[in-house]
Amino acid sequence: MNGKMKAIKKSERGPGAELAEVEIPAVGDLDVLIRVKATSICGTDVHIYNWDEWSKSRVNPPYVFGHEFAGEVVEVGEKVTKVQVGDYVSAETHIVCHQCPQCLTGQFHICENTKIIGVDTQGCFAEYVALPEENMWKNPADMPVDIASIQEPMGNAVHTVLNGDVAGKTVAIIGCGPIGLMAVGVAKAAGASLVLAFDVNPYRLELAEKMGASITIHSGNEDPVKRAKDLTNGHGVDVVCEMSGHPVAMDQGFKMITNGGRVSILSLPVQPVHIDITNDVVFKGIQVQGITGRKMFETWQQVSRLLQSNQVDVTPILTHHLPLEDFHKGFELMNEGKCGKVVLHP
Amino acid sequence: MNGKMKAIKKSERGPGAELAEVEIPAVGDLDVLIRVKATSICGTDVHIYNWDEWSKSRVNPPYVFGHEFAGEVVEVGEKVTKVQVGDYVSAETHIVCHQCPQCLTGQFHICENTKIIGVDTQGCFAEYVALPEENMWKNPADMPVDIASIQEPMGNAVHTVLNGDVAGKTVAIIGCGPIGLMAVGVAKAAGASLVLAFDVNPYRLELAEKMGASITIHSGNEDPVKRAKDLTNGHGVDVVCEMSGHPVAMDQGFKMITNGGRVSILSLPVQPVHIDITNDVVFKGIQVQGITGRKMFETWQQVSRLLQSNQVDVTPILTHHLPLEDFHKGFELMNEGKCGKVVLHP
Amino acid sequence: MNGKMKAIKKSERGPGAELAEVEIPAVGDLDVLIRVKATSICGTDVHIYNWDEWSKSRVNPPYVFGHEFAGEVVEVGEKVTKVQVGDYVSAETHIVCHQCPQCLTGQFHICENTKIIGVDTQGCFAEYVALPEENMWKNPADMPVDIASIQEPMGNAVHTVLNGDVAGKTVAIIGCGPIGLMAVGVAKAAGASLVLAFDVNPYRLELAEKMGASITIHSGNEDPVKRAKDLTNGHGVDVVCEMSGHPVAMDQGFKMITNGGRVSILSLPVQPVHIDITNDVVFKGIQVQGITGRKMFETWQQVSRLLQSNQVDVTPILTHHLPLEDFHKGFELMNEGKCGKVVLHP
Amino acid sequence: MNGKMKAIKKSERGPGAELAEVEIPAVGDLDVLIRVKATSICGTDVHIYNWDEWSKSRVNPPYVFGHEFAGEVVEVGEKVTKVQVGDYVSAETHIVCHQCPQCLTGQFHICENTKIIGVDTQGCFAEYVALPEENMWKNPADMPVDIASIQEPMGNAVHTVLNGDVAGKTVAIIGCGPIGLMAVGVAKAAGASLVLAFDVNPYRLELAEKMGASITIHSGNEDPVKRAKDLTNGHGVDVVCEMSGHPVAMDQGFKMITNGGRVSILSLPVQPVHIDITNDVVFKGIQVQGITGRKMFETWQQVSRLLQSNQVDVTPILTHHLPLEDFHKGFELMNEGKCGKVVLHP
Repeated sequence: MNGKMKAIKKSERGPGAELAEVEIPAVGDLDVLIRVKATSICGTDVHIYNWDEWSKSRVNPPYVFGHEFAGEVVEVGEKVTKVQVGDYVSAETHIVCHQCPQCLTGQFHICENTKIIGVDTQGCFAEYVALPEENMWKNPADMPVDIASIQEPMGNAVHTVLNGDVAGKTVAIIGCGPIGLMAVGVAKAAGASLVLAFDVNPYRLELAEKMGASITIHSGNEDPVKRAKDLTNGHGVDVVCEMSGHPVAMDQGFKMITNGGRVSILSLPVQPVHIDITNDVVFKGIQVQGITGRKMFETWQQVSRLLQSNQVDVTPILTHHLPLEDFHKGFELMNEGKCGKVVLHP
Repeated sequence: MNGKMKAIKKSERGPGAELAEVEIPAVGDLDVLIRVKATSICGTDVHIYNWDEWSKSRVNPPYVFGHEFAGEVVEVGEKVTKVQVGDYVSAETHIVCHQCPQCLTGQFHICENTKIIGVDTQGCFAEYVALPEENMWKNPADMPVDIASIQEPMGNAVHTVLNGDVAGKTVAIIGCGPIGLMAVGVAKAAGASLVLAFDVNPYRLELAEKMGASITIHSGNEDPVKRAKDLTNGHGVDVVCEMSGHPVAMDQGFKMITNGGRVSILSLPVQPVHIDITNDVVFKGIQVQGITGRKMFETWQQVSRLLQSNQVDVTPILTHHLPLEDFHKGFELMNEGKCGKVVLHP
Repeated sequence: MNGKMKAIKKSERGPGAELAEVEIPAVGDLDVLIRVKATSICGTDVHIYNWDEWSKSRVNPPYVFGHEFAGEVVEVGEKVTKVQVGDYVSAETHIVCHQCPQCLTGQFHICENTKIIGVDTQGCFAEYVALPEENMWKNPADMPVDIASIQEPMGNAVHTVLNGDVAGKTVAIIGCGPIGLMAVGVAKAAGASLVLAFDVNPYRLELAEKMGASITIHSGNEDPVKRAKDLTNGHGVDVVCEMSGHPVAMDQGFKMITNGGRVSILSLPVQPVHIDITNDVVFKGIQVQGITGRKMFETWQQVSRLLQSNQVDVTPILTHHLPLEDFHKGFELMNEGKCGKVVLHP
Repeated sequence: MNGKMKAIKKSERGPGAELAEVEIPAVGDLDVLIRVKATSICGTDVHIYNWDEWSKSRVNPPYVFGHEFAGEVVEVGEKVTKVQVGDYVSAETHIVCHQCPQCLTGQFHICENTKIIGVDTQGCFAEYVALPEENMWKNPADMPVDIASIQEPMGNAVHTVLNGDVAGKTVAIIGCGPIGLMAVGVAKAAGASLVLAFDVNPYRLELAEKMGASITIHSGNEDPVKRAKDLTNGHGVDVVCEMSGHPVAMDQGFKMITNGGRVSILSLPVQPVHIDITNDVVFKGIQVQGITGRKMFETWQQVSRLLQSNQVDVTPILTHHLPLEDFHKGFELMNEGKCGKVVLHP
């Protein structure tokens, strides 16, 4: 498809971004072109918008960023066989190599050569986006576009929470950003008997309650470790999902976990973290898991089904809807932490 | 404690049972004596009451039968250290040897020398029962006695359903007796996205709906395999929990399972079953699990928490409450299949 | 590459096969052409040669059969990116769809739409074979071609044996055809403390001993269940790998397994098998696994490393080497059971 | 049994220990008395002998220390049922509570209230030791006493190495003290295709080679991370067993692990360790396991079988045998690192 389209462009190596008119991207042999109907803002996009240290070292403006979306396929490349024009899709955002030992053993989410859509390639904050066929995930016709758009981050939540048993267990979600909030809903849906949500932002603790947290705890107002122990007869929680990235909160997670428990870390602390290996890891006999991306596509199947069956209702998190043009306001909301998920509509 | 008590006694090698006055059982050094507050009728008790082939080969009248209960500890043996007079308890019904390879590797539920309370030993259809301290499970003070009593069979349901992942999966429960009905509730609570309940008894299919089945299917009125396939885009279900014991229903389970699925069998078919190993097991790459008893005491912990957190509500299954004296009526109801769980109150 | 080549052709719907001169196959965009250096005869090839019931229902002569091989890439299709001319390769023989739920969740080996090379497509009993790039497995330069050729069936053995723990366990291999013999070596290499090999063919029991079996047992000359129990203090074995396909032998496997054990079935019995579900599966609390194909490509990685590290030495199994032209003799040896693996050299 | 016996007594809160004549310990109802035939020195005993910070905070002299041994039961308490006079035994050294959530779910090795023999209770550096019946492990009659004595620390090695798959994998053992050396043997026996042993002590690297290490690496003389990467085509190792306790070596383990790998930590670093959670744990998607004690008694079964089947030969590690009286020399050897395992014979 030839022509121009609106897009949010990171034009320069510095803070901010701009609305621009750019070429509709060309479609390679194994690619598809999608008309974007909804696209949501991820914390990663905020880093790029703000132009932090990580962004400086990773992204190469000028380019169009954004990676969470839902839309309709309007064109397919010559060799495409599994996707058709008219398909209603979202996309796995990891483009993998299929050649490293991880890919060869089916662990695509930890491919050694991962490229991320909208970070390392052109993204979806635009009217159209061109992507590899193999990254497509087909959505059910009746799934609203804003919900379909946030399946990707919900995949992170599902991957973290369901990377071990939760039914009949006590689960702590540390950090109630959008993914933490979804994790609360997933833990509850998967049968956790006690879901504790921790944050220092009252707005988000309120959302956590709406998502089904048994108890919300303001970590600045009371001792989170003491509270977690008190709520578990002194034994500690069975599962910690670390989604804050704060060294102090992370350490609290290691202190509140019970012997034999599981600490699943999705967050990305900016500095090395001190961990009391002897007392908090070895003597407790716990397991610590690094969680990145989504299992391809096992996690997507879980997400899609949990949404379709209404086991998880994400509508409380979808707090803001804006036209694509108002993206500055969306980034402001994200920076202020006064939102759940912000969805842009091109 | 000396004295007499009321009990349901299997007096002779033949059908039936009788209300009798017997000695309150003596308490060994490592035993506790419990005042029974509620005791529920299991399918196994019905076999013993009816005096079927299995009973003839296994049980030795005269004795008091029954094994599901809740009550209060009124006396403890000299060497008892973990239970106190006044504790509110139910009991794991497997008495294990602690010496076979299974016990030595922590797999107590498949002990080679298991004795079952109320089958191989004196049971709890009585005002009092004496049992080993190590079989006790302490109940929360606010759990109703009828619910506490059915934790043991609910443990079978939990052991079966949670012996693999169910969150975001499709689950078929084949056979909606009391344990099948509890399995429906457990699957739903643990995040199954589609729970199909199969039976030929409309009364129990109705209970299955109350327990949260997505769809109930009368296996006599429609082709259960076709229906399961239709409901899963032709792929079949991810998990089958076989609780019917009927060779035909079991075969249907193997036909409706998807490639890579899990068939967990709790039922006890009376004859060898023909299985199409090549097409239904090997080419499909499935796993088949034999399920017996409850993991000691991991399953009890799961049961207790799922009940306390209201993730599973078993009240629809508690259809009948009778004084101990009316036990004949209870067995009649069970034989007719016109009940969920029947609870007797001594 | 244009021209003619020698190939073993299944020309007609009936027993036998013939040496023929056929066109070198054309190479599609995503295919590679391989010069075959060694190709080995599988039991499946014997079924096709003999023209049994299964073959009649599955294969469509005229075509070239065979699927185990090692060779050198001599031409690559236009879109091929991961394989180069000169690469030394073998091939995974399942061609999968990448669209069914199994493929989408990384379980390619149980793809609902699997096509098998040399069964459903043109095979490798020839000087050249054209295959999809994505099925290629690269061999280390110093691996002999006959060993590289039998990695595919060794993958079945590895998939079966290593589909659960074996270190410090007792393992029974039932059926000592070539894959059973490899399974003996794999179990030993993976730390099994006792490897029992069962068959009724003394030639193959001798090979089992060479592969490292702790004890070989002639199932026709003594009671295999009694022997297995005697050798395990009456408890039974921890793991059974069923590779015989005989209903009687399979039943013996279920009788000799210990409580909580694992029965992994790779064999394909021609008729439904009677299984005593109650006593041999449920009360024992065992798991039964259907094993098909190889995990793609986790199993290949395990096979390659076990061979390269000399943890498993397969040379005792490589009993016969013949020029491609002498294939009739190879099939005779296989039908007589007087061989390990027969390798043909085009 | 009344009378006196020789014992190594920690008499005072300070360095050293002394040979003393003490009472033969009394036998409780559920205890057994063992005549010690061999007892080996653990690193923990060295800490107690040296009187380091940990010892000051944990042990309460005067008492007899030591916990690894083999011997013969000479007396049993009144209520003992599973052990008999004449049994040849070693002992699990964790005395557990059977009441905490971990014990109740079969995870005895991480009991919240663990007491350790010879640390928190009277130990076995003596002619006799009295211990709970339930801690006994029966040895095969033909196992030499020095080998039987070191099963306890070998259990740590087995628990660490076999807490995940190793067959066909690359395994790094960091730290070649006695347990690290046993871990080398276990990894090799369980089918690891490449076992890398790291240390800075040439004497112990030589022992590592004798135990079957594929390659030994002096971490002071070359860059261990670079070497591990070079030996794995740049991908890193699949499994790291951390047994050094050094923060630098531990960090090297996290740097040399491949994406999706497993880091199992048995060592007890004396201070919190800095870990690059983002790059070394999350992006890599690895799992980190704290390992303590031995699974009761699954690990003992694995140890016993690996020894009996000669899959692991520990004789190279049994470098020194001394009469009990020469214990000072044994502790010197341990402090100098000029030994494998030191065995004392009372």
